[in-house]
Amino acid sequence: MTRVINFSAGPATLPLPVLEYAHDEFLDFEGTGMSLIEHSHRGAAYAKVHEETKVLFRELLDIPDTHEVLFMQGGASAQFALVPMNLRAPAQSADYVMTGAWSDKALSEAKITGDAREAGTGKVDGKYTRIPTQSELDLDENAAYAHYTTNNTIMGTQFHYVPQTGEVPLVADMSSDILCRPIDVSKYGLIYAGAQKNLGPAGITILILRKDLADRSPDTLPKIFRYSTILAGDSLQNTIPTFAVYMVRNVLRWVQDLGGASAMERRNREKADLIYGMIDENPDFFRCPVERESRSIMNPVFRLPTEELEKTFIAEAAHAGMVGIKGHRSVGGIRTSIYNAMEPSDVERFVDFAKAFAKGAG
Amino acid sequence: MTRVINFSAGPATLPLPVLEYAHDEFLDFEGTGMSLIEHSHRGAAYAKVHEETKVLFRELLDIPDTHEVLFMQGGASAQFALVPMNLRAPAQSADYVMTGAWSDKALSEAKITGDAREAGTGKVDGKYTRIPTQSELDLDENAAYAHYTTNNTIMGTQFHYVPQTGEVPLVADMSSDILCRPIDVSKYGLIYAGAQKNLGPAGITILILRKDLADRSPDTLPKIFRYSTILAGDSLQNTIPTFAVYMVRNVLRWVQDLGGASAMERRNREKADLIYGMIDENPDFFRCPVERESRSIMNPVFRLPTEELEKTFIAEAAHAGMVGIKGHRSVGGIRTSIYNAMEPSDVERFVDFAKAFAKGAG
Repeated sequence: MTRVINFSAGPATLPLPVLEYAHDEFLDFEGTGMSLIEHSHRGAAYAKVHEETKVLFRELLDIPDTHEVLFMQGGASAQFALVPMNLRAPAQSADYVMTGAWSDKALSEAKITGDAREAGTGKVDGKYTRIPTQSELDLDENAAYAHYTTNNTIMGTQFHYVPQTGEVPLVADMSSDILCRPIDVSKYGLIYAGAQKNLGPAGITILILRKDLADRSPDTLPKIFRYSTILAGDSLQNTIPTFAVYMVRNVLRWVQDLGGASAMERRNREKADLIYGMIDENPDFFRCPVERESRSIMNPVFRLPTEELEKTFIAEAAHAGMVGIKGHRSVGGIRTSIYNAMEPSDVERFVDFAKAFAKGAG
Repeated sequence: MTRVINFSAGPATLPLPVLEYAHDEFLDFEGTGMSLIEHSHRGAAYAKVHEETKVLFRELLDIPDTHEVLFMQGGASAQFALVPMNLRAPAQSADYVMTGAWSDKALSEAKITGDAREAGTGKVDGKYTRIPTQSELDLDENAAYAHYTTNNTIMGTQFHYVPQTGEVPLVADMSSDILCRPIDVSKYGLIYAGAQKNLGPAGITILILRKDLADRSPDTLPKIFRYSTILAGDSLQNTIPTFAVYMVRNVLRWVQDLGGASAMERRNREKADLIYGMIDENPDFFRCPVERESRSIMNPVFRLPTEELEKTFIAEAAHAGMVGIKGHRSVGGIRTSIYNAMEPSDVERFVDFAKAFAKGAG
């Protein structure tokens, strides 16, 4: 097998040791005589996986007792709908900091079921090329919550500070950068993240909920959509996607073995520095459309002098075993998603390729 | 590896050839140099899997052009909420035929967001031990839809006829018996089914929707929960659980290789006959609490003379490599879930064990 270097934005590359581990016991989970995916979600074998996954999250993100780890389905997109349905009272509004397509969708869904407003934007000349600073935020102190997207996969921007929202609970969509660095969970009312970028395969959403906020889930919402139900049921109120949780557990073990969230941050900065360094050192050929202070360490994006050159660049990279670098269809250009699982040595190989390409085309 | 015989109600046993196939290409999907779970849900590799899965459903269930195959997340439990939210207008009521815990939950969720009523029941002396006949149904001709559960995993009952509901669209929760036999899809407005019993692993829900019903999805519902969104987006409006769909495809290929839905019905009747035969031939030891005409060919349930004997029976079965036969905690007794994937030879082995146990204890 020749393994390619996969820069896809998500579903994304996973650590090879994690895949190999799952592969080894796929047909016979821990000697039980069946696959993990055949085990009942209420049986002892899965129960251990479930518990360990929660414990690993608590340890790796240093989650305080005030918060609980929940699992849901439907990805961040379902949360765009469920956050306001659970946390916003009928007479209340909610604040949304706008930094890209995902904030746009989150706000749009929130407006369908009640009041919601923009509380700051990273838009410059019609494009989301930066992260607004704290002083640029326009927060409503009566808002049900304030929502932001920590990292923006399409635009290649990322928050490098935590917005201060006073008494208003802070809600964060961390789908594309959860566990890329340490965070102070106590500052958040709710963190949610689809697993398929930094945590595992598609099909499971992780929530870290300040438990008192579950009291807000209204009786008018179907029970299966209430955070209070998920919290009370330990995320097992109905059948949970057992394989997805199992793979997340395996990824979390791998993160722990490598040194945890701090080690991930060092690893991710090292990779991002390689790519941004290449861009900055070749300003005549590469151009990053993102404001320097807002650059993402998860999804560096850049442009080449022409779209024609970008096409050739993508094709030659694929030929050299590096795939998934085409920018999102809405913005074009090149995007290199370098989530936790991406090896620094693979980014080095890509940077070597890109530099040689620039030299050849220059 | 010693493979056990797994009678779990779901997640449930899967065909060994399907597991082995997935195992073989887990690290390198079709020579692409990465696992299927690392592929983008918008890439060519997954697109082929997605399309083939839909085509296989169409072929195996002979789905007419009026209907479309959709994939969602959240299991049947999410559909308990979403069916009324999508299909019922504010002034309308919906009909529910009551046959067990799952109908109870479906009705309960439907009542949270509007009007819904019982339209027949299988309850006898407080227990759901039978399926009501067509003439016992009390249908509202103005209902938004009429809902029923085709097979009841906990009580071991199953519909062996399709309720006639006139102009009112028929909605069926087929989570535990989809593809166990041929069906006439044209009779249904909507069929939905969690995959984790007859179709694959947990984490994906299959919907077969009469396309015109998508027009009912209201603007007041968040877009991600509208059937109209899922239909328009070919179930790819957001990241789909690619691995779960892939496993379903593999199971459908296996069903097709074995001869399709008719072959599944023969296979399932053969297995059910073995178990019910054993019960009926040993009436002093085994007792099936279900009315004969309502017996499930998916989840035969039965009792032994005492709970003490049931405990011993379960323990000795496990010792002999047969697990997951403990009845649901709400009803007790023995339950043998014999979904499509269960091999007739394994049911024979179980029946031999059970007969020997009866003889030894008698």
